[in-house]
Amino acid sequence: MANKLKLGIPKGSLQDATLALFERAGWRIFANGRSYFPTIDDVEIECMLVRAQEMARYVEHGALDAGLTGNDWVLENQSDVERITSLTYSKQSRQTVKWVLAVPEDSPYYKPEDLAGKIIATELVEFSKRYFASKNIPVTVEFSWGATEVKPPTLADAIVEVTETGSSLKANRLRIIEVLMESETQLIANKTAYADAWKREKINNISLMLNAAIAAQGRVGLLLNVATGLLDAVTAELPALSSPTVSQLSNGEGFALSTILDERVVREVIPKLKAAGATGIVEYPLSKVVL
Amino acid sequence: MANKLKLGIPKGSLQDATLALFERAGWRIFANGRSYFPTIDDVEIECMLVRAQEMARYVEHGALDAGLTGNDWVLENQSDVERITSLTYSKQSRQTVKWVLAVPEDSPYYKPEDLAGKIIATELVEFSKRYFASKNIPVTVEFSWGATEVKPPTLADAIVEVTETGSSLKANRLRIIEVLMESETQLIANKTAYADAWKREKINNISLMLNAAIAAQGRVGLLLNVATGLLDAVTAELPALSSPTVSQLSNGEGFALSTILDERVVREVIPKLKAAGATGIVEYPLSKVVL
Amino acid sequence: MANKLKLGIPKGSLQDATLALFERAGWRIFANGRSYFPTIDDVEIECMLVRAQEMARYVEHGALDAGLTGNDWVLENQSDVERITSLTYSKQSRQTVKWVLAVPEDSPYYKPEDLAGKIIATELVEFSKRYFASKNIPVTVEFSWGATEVKPPTLADAIVEVTETGSSLKANRLRIIEVLMESETQLIANKTAYADAWKREKINNISLMLNAAIAAQGRVGLLLNVATGLLDAVTAELPALSSPTVSQLSNGEGFALSTILDERVVREVIPKLKAAGATGIVEYPLSKVVL
Amino acid sequence: MANKLKLGIPKGSLQDATLALFERAGWRIFANGRSYFPTIDDVEIECMLVRAQEMARYVEHGALDAGLTGNDWVLENQSDVERITSLTYSKQSRQTVKWVLAVPEDSPYYKPEDLAGKIIATELVEFSKRYFASKNIPVTVEFSWGATEVKPPTLADAIVEVTETGSSLKANRLRIIEVLMESETQLIANKTAYADAWKREKINNISLMLNAAIAAQGRVGLLLNVATGLLDAVTAELPALSSPTVSQLSNGEGFALSTILDERVVREVIPKLKAAGATGIVEYPLSKVVL
Amino acid sequence: MANKLKLGIPKGSLQDATLALFERAGWRIFANGRSYFPTIDDVEIECMLVRAQEMARYVEHGALDAGLTGNDWVLENQSDVERITSLTYSKQSRQTVKWVLAVPEDSPYYKPEDLAGKIIATELVEFSKRYFASKNIPVTVEFSWGATEVKPPTLADAIVEVTETGSSLKANRLRIIEVLMESETQLIANKTAYADAWKREKINNISLMLNAAIAAQGRVGLLLNVATGLLDAVTAELPALSSPTVSQLSNGEGFALSTILDERVVREVIPKLKAAGATGIVEYPLSKVVL
Amino acid sequence: MANKLKLGIPKGSLQDATLALFERAGWRIFANGRSYFPTIDDVEIECMLVRAQEMARYVEHGALDAGLTGNDWVLENQSDVERITSLTYSKQSRQTVKWVLAVPEDSPYYKPEDLAGKIIATELVEFSKRYFASKNIPVTVEFSWGATEVKPPTLADAIVEVTETGSSLKANRLRIIEVLMESETQLIANKTAYADAWKREKINNISLMLNAAIAAQGRVGLLLNVATGLLDAVTAELPALSSPTVSQLSNGEGFALSTILDERVVREVIPKLKAAGATGIVEYPLSKVVL
Repeated sequence: MANKLKLGIPKGSLQDATLALFERAGWRIFANGRSYFPTIDDVEIECMLVRAQEMARYVEHGALDAGLTGNDWVLENQSDVERITSLTYSKQSRQTVKWVLAVPEDSPYYKPEDLAGKIIATELVEFSKRYFASKNIPVTVEFSWGATEVKPPTLADAIVEVTETGSSLKANRLRIIEVLMESETQLIANKTAYADAWKREKINNISLMLNAAIAAQGRVGLLLNVATGLLDAVTAELPALSSPTVSQLSNGEGFALSTILDERVVREVIPKLKAAGATGIVEYPLSKVVL
Repeated sequence: MANKLKLGIPKGSLQDATLALFERAGWRIFANGRSYFPTIDDVEIECMLVRAQEMARYVEHGALDAGLTGNDWVLENQSDVERITSLTYSKQSRQTVKWVLAVPEDSPYYKPEDLAGKIIATELVEFSKRYFASKNIPVTVEFSWGATEVKPPTLADAIVEVTETGSSLKANRLRIIEVLMESETQLIANKTAYADAWKREKINNISLMLNAAIAAQGRVGLLLNVATGLLDAVTAELPALSSPTVSQLSNGEGFALSTILDERVVREVIPKLKAAGATGIVEYPLSKVVL
Repeated sequence: MANKLKLGIPKGSLQDATLALFERAGWRIFANGRSYFPTIDDVEIECMLVRAQEMARYVEHGALDAGLTGNDWVLENQSDVERITSLTYSKQSRQTVKWVLAVPEDSPYYKPEDLAGKIIATELVEFSKRYFASKNIPVTVEFSWGATEVKPPTLADAIVEVTETGSSLKANRLRIIEVLMESETQLIANKTAYADAWKREKINNISLMLNAAIAAQGRVGLLLNVATGLLDAVTAELPALSSPTVSQLSNGEGFALSTILDERVVREVIPKLKAAGATGIVEYPLSKVVL
Repeated sequence: MANKLKLGIPKGSLQDATLALFERAGWRIFANGRSYFPTIDDVEIECMLVRAQEMARYVEHGALDAGLTGNDWVLENQSDVERITSLTYSKQSRQTVKWVLAVPEDSPYYKPEDLAGKIIATELVEFSKRYFASKNIPVTVEFSWGATEVKPPTLADAIVEVTETGSSLKANRLRIIEVLMESETQLIANKTAYADAWKREKINNISLMLNAAIAAQGRVGLLLNVATGLLDAVTAELPALSSPTVSQLSNGEGFALSTILDERVVREVIPKLKAAGATGIVEYPLSKVVL
Repeated sequence: MANKLKLGIPKGSLQDATLALFERAGWRIFANGRSYFPTIDDVEIECMLVRAQEMARYVEHGALDAGLTGNDWVLENQSDVERITSLTYSKQSRQTVKWVLAVPEDSPYYKPEDLAGKIIATELVEFSKRYFASKNIPVTVEFSWGATEVKPPTLADAIVEVTETGSSLKANRLRIIEVLMESETQLIANKTAYADAWKREKINNISLMLNAAIAAQGRVGLLLNVATGLLDAVTAELPALSSPTVSQLSNGEGFALSTILDERVVREVIPKLKAAGATGIVEYPLSKVVL
Repeated sequence: MANKLKLGIPKGSLQDATLALFERAGWRIFANGRSYFPTIDDVEIECMLVRAQEMARYVEHGALDAGLTGNDWVLENQSDVERITSLTYSKQSRQTVKWVLAVPEDSPYYKPEDLAGKIIATELVEFSKRYFASKNIPVTVEFSWGATEVKPPTLADAIVEVTETGSSLKANRLRIIEVLMESETQLIANKTAYADAWKREKINNISLMLNAAIAAQGRVGLLLNVATGLLDAVTAELPALSSPTVSQLSNGEGFALSTILDERVVREVIPKLKAAGATGIVEYPLSKVVL
């Protein structure tokens, strides 16, 4: 029988971003309406949509060989899995998320110890219990089915909640008193599967290509011409690590430079390159980068 | 300070149907975008959107005086609350839901006992544990974050899942082997709140009006004229319990009948009334019925 | 085996209006996504969605016992079916449609005979051929797969096309030179099925209820009070055929009138009734009317 | 030539509510996509969509015989028109709107006089200028093309802005320091047109029917039966002005009552009626009411 | 007068994909709402939207000089046209479609001959008749107005239907017993028009550019650097036909390679290139390719 | 305190196109729902959404340092601002707009002078008044709140209206009798701000990058190989100003050319390049171009 890698794709808020990432990395995954078994254009992979919260559990048990999920849920489930690579591709921000302990703005709680004897609502029950236990603070941790940030003060005294920008907490007039954990998406693998040579190479290739797609997202290609005498002045304006490919023009009157730039610095670099005498400056989009 | 009733409205799949029911019953509730505190046109009520799964917990603790939730979640939480009335107004079907134990169609499991030693995935963890414990069947019950019906056989051996028509189970090739519970929406109240005279009357009035709106939904008003000699023949075609209001016409040539009919029988009753000699048959819609 | 009536529902532009009509008449039909076999809340009926163009063919052959389709397609297919009742419930206008012979505004064609030797594009090929043959006008009739009204003069010389208001013809700068047929929706039945007593009664009841729902759509109920001396003046303002139900008020000071009015005259009648002394004028909506 | 009434319908935020009101009143107006000349099912009326801000200007000049617009814009334009009736049918709230003078929450302005020498942004330029002139407060009034409430303090010192609930002002952290005007929608007529007998009657009939539709919107019909001895107790629970129609039942055992109630009191009245012994209580919807 | 090419664009399911293809090829075509005459940014071309089923007929007659349609409809109409090029750009799959003879899964028909005397429903009436005639199998071929695949067994015994993936046939429980034809989109031309030198060149240029855009769609550009000694090892990992452009770096320490790759092999090639020592691997998107 | 540039973004029809332009130029601006203060990923810039009509007024007064608006509104307000650069990036057409004087098709007005004594409706009141005053034509210019083109002849005699393609004027049967002004979007700056060195450089860099993004939009990158002997023939087919970068291939058998082409000529150039012997022709997209 042919080799197959059972791969878990996170269902829900990360799903579309994950499918888009795989497409940029070279795999088209088709989510067929309500089916939980999307098709993929690679006969060596079998996909399944699984909630991020449950992914680590199923990877650990071997129902899946590998999967993408947040580090937070690996910790919540205390799953014994292989961590292959971190991947930050969240659609909106590319930031990591934080799980924080938050209380009403006008409450008298300013540090975790102030919550002794209180009710904490959270989706991350086990992790939160271990956190408070490690500090010897007696609290009641209740599972929250959602909308956790509207619960204080009516339905809970404090919450342990995930936040990216803090805007939802602010909108609900909550104050952060402690950051419990930072988390980002990871590609994880079952330990037995990762010991198998074929699966190990397949997983590593997927990791390489996902990272190549992520690396391309924030970068652009830059081409420019420079007269012979200006080469040093122009290259001095490029970021230190960019090491351009320099080719001599066939007419002998200068050089063509080709380099890769971080997208965020382009708006500052191009005006300087032009001032230094570069001509024919052209930026083009990239789809994969392996430096 | 004025009296206020703290009322929990179920957030999620039942929310729109619930707001529509309250509107038909005489209260307009405005869900303001993402706020969890909808406004209501009754200064004596304060609303909060709460997940059905958590409603009974908060009514029991007194954070809410009353709320609507399924009987299933009252049982899951084993909450000590006052049950005021059952309300069946689910948008699609008006049926009750069932929680069933289901296994893959082609699995070798045919009764609960066959699942000894197996993994059961469900959202109703505590109820399921008590069910299997009461039968002395040792199983592992795992909390499912959703999409429970796609888990067998890969991620679980069996599930305890809610179903209304069974079509989702069938689509996932699952077979029901036991019905664990039937459940319907209920208006529940905090016991202390219900002991307060003002709150008790307010809750009872809400119960009366919600039931009046539900009763109207499946019924219609019927008016018809009948000549003096045909009165008995025509009334004989009306359902036994309909007891029409009969008024004599001022010209003395017959009677005007006014009655309420179950909407489902109208398509059979009207042809018979016409055959029996009724004239001027008119059906009109109702918005509340208190028989 | 239980009796079953096989009923064809027209798929396409009339589908939603037809399902709405059946709902008002007392039958709920659920079109399940892409299925062509909608469910209906009547165990004695089996529905199938069929294109209006093909309905008469399948009713004639007996694959369906009854169905709704336009008279135009009965004629196009020259189907030998029982015509039960005409039903005008088209969502926008309640008008009948016309099939017309149309030519470009600035063409030299003014009567059918002018088109001898020309190309006619139409969806109604057989009917059009018979029409021109009956007049001994030699033309080429070509089947048009749609967008017939944009074909002249580039792709055809004239068209036979359906129109309700003529606005699409006008927008395409076409001129009507002859009305070939007026058509409206009909309930038709297979002749053998209609000879069966059970099916005949079932079809007749459906016909009665559909007509009751259509009759209600353009009518409203009117209640009003009138003092004893003004009864004649007030009733004189009611349309001739409305024959109100008159009940004496228990206080002996006048009468309560109840009647049914055509919705289109209400805006003229109410001001006159008020001027004649009627009080407490109330209009309420109707859902079925069998006069 | 036939008589025609040229009627202006307010384009924009009130348009859908106005078309719905006319439909309930008995006239169907069809807005044909982007056309400004909607069709109406009354050959005696010709409609035109006109911005509320310009309506009074065109009614005054006679380009329109009548139209619906806010009183605010009549005053802004100081138009000399006939005011026929006020109409409060705004879809959301049925309230009137207010034009207020508002300043940033944390500004040092607390009364109009504090704004001497400042910049006021508003859509209601002329009215605002007259207001400040009448108080001898020198200010600069600038026309605002929209989003007026975000201008202070960056782009203006204060604003004159319309508000219904005040929520938009609050969201922009503005404080109301004066209410300049309350305004509601009015049916206005050109004075010459209103002097013409035919047009006057037509306008008055439209006014009567629009009011009949508005009156029905907040009311419902109520039917109930009451045993002979309980008639007084039951009627005592009805609002003072409801004066029910009482008919004796033909079996002599009681009365049938029919009345109209304000929708807002139904939820309080029905429980009391039931407690007083009423049976067969039925509420039905109304579409027009002329008391 | 200037030269003009009359070009038919297929209306319907292929329309959006065709407009997108032309845009990638260098022509912007604007479909103006409901107009059948889209504008194009090339004064030498005049476009018309025509149903694929009718395209070949109008190209043959000369109403159009060229057009895009499926080979199936050229065969159905037996049109005498010039076939310029095949184009496979269907949005979903890039596959060709098949017209198949299909019967109910559980029917007793297993080869075309089994259908003697039966009813065949299809949109491709003439082609199907010729097919069965060529095999001397007597059948009745009926024109189907759509939804052909739901007709067996109720409304037809078998169908001739188009399919891309077979999923719709499977969903309707049909079994394929014969593939009658494979078909793909073609650019076709009127024979007289194609004999004209100007039109011939214009059509050929369109053909070249459409193919250039299609060729680019499944390919990407790849840049990479390689140290002098590793050139052979790295190029050995490139697909045989890719023939990279190799330029010496100006610092003399290696080479820059530029090549075009089939998008489907990138995910396998990049890991191998990296393993072979390539650095600075960059993939960028292409919009046209003429090899 | 850090330097900040206050930048106005035009709200309304140009908003999305402007945000897209800034994104292509290197700045991400996030419009947060209804907020008028979008965030931008550059700590040196503070954005505000302002109507194009008011932009010049606020830039002139210094509430904003710079902003984008049409030249028409700079002229209407006669604002004294620095004009930095013209930017034509309108989503649909890249054309400039025109303000025209238009009258009903069948009116007797053929030149501005014919409108003496008439009513002109327009959004551009001050500019129009100055235009007619400069020609000594006495007219009444009325402010139009929108839908200006439907006003003649009922509500105005002529209009001064903006048009891009003239299609809306044609649809309303209006005839242009004079073009009053051509206008395009401009980046404008407050004169005091532009005198500040830091703000001047920041504004100039924004101008450079916006122009780089606009320049890229209508251009593409082209790569091709050419054998040694064909270099002249191939380069002869390139547009005069394209000056390709020519690199010798490492195998000595020819050259690799890289150039930038205007997107509109590609469909003509590629067929000629191929005919001249170019191979491996590849077009790729660009995101910025500074020539």
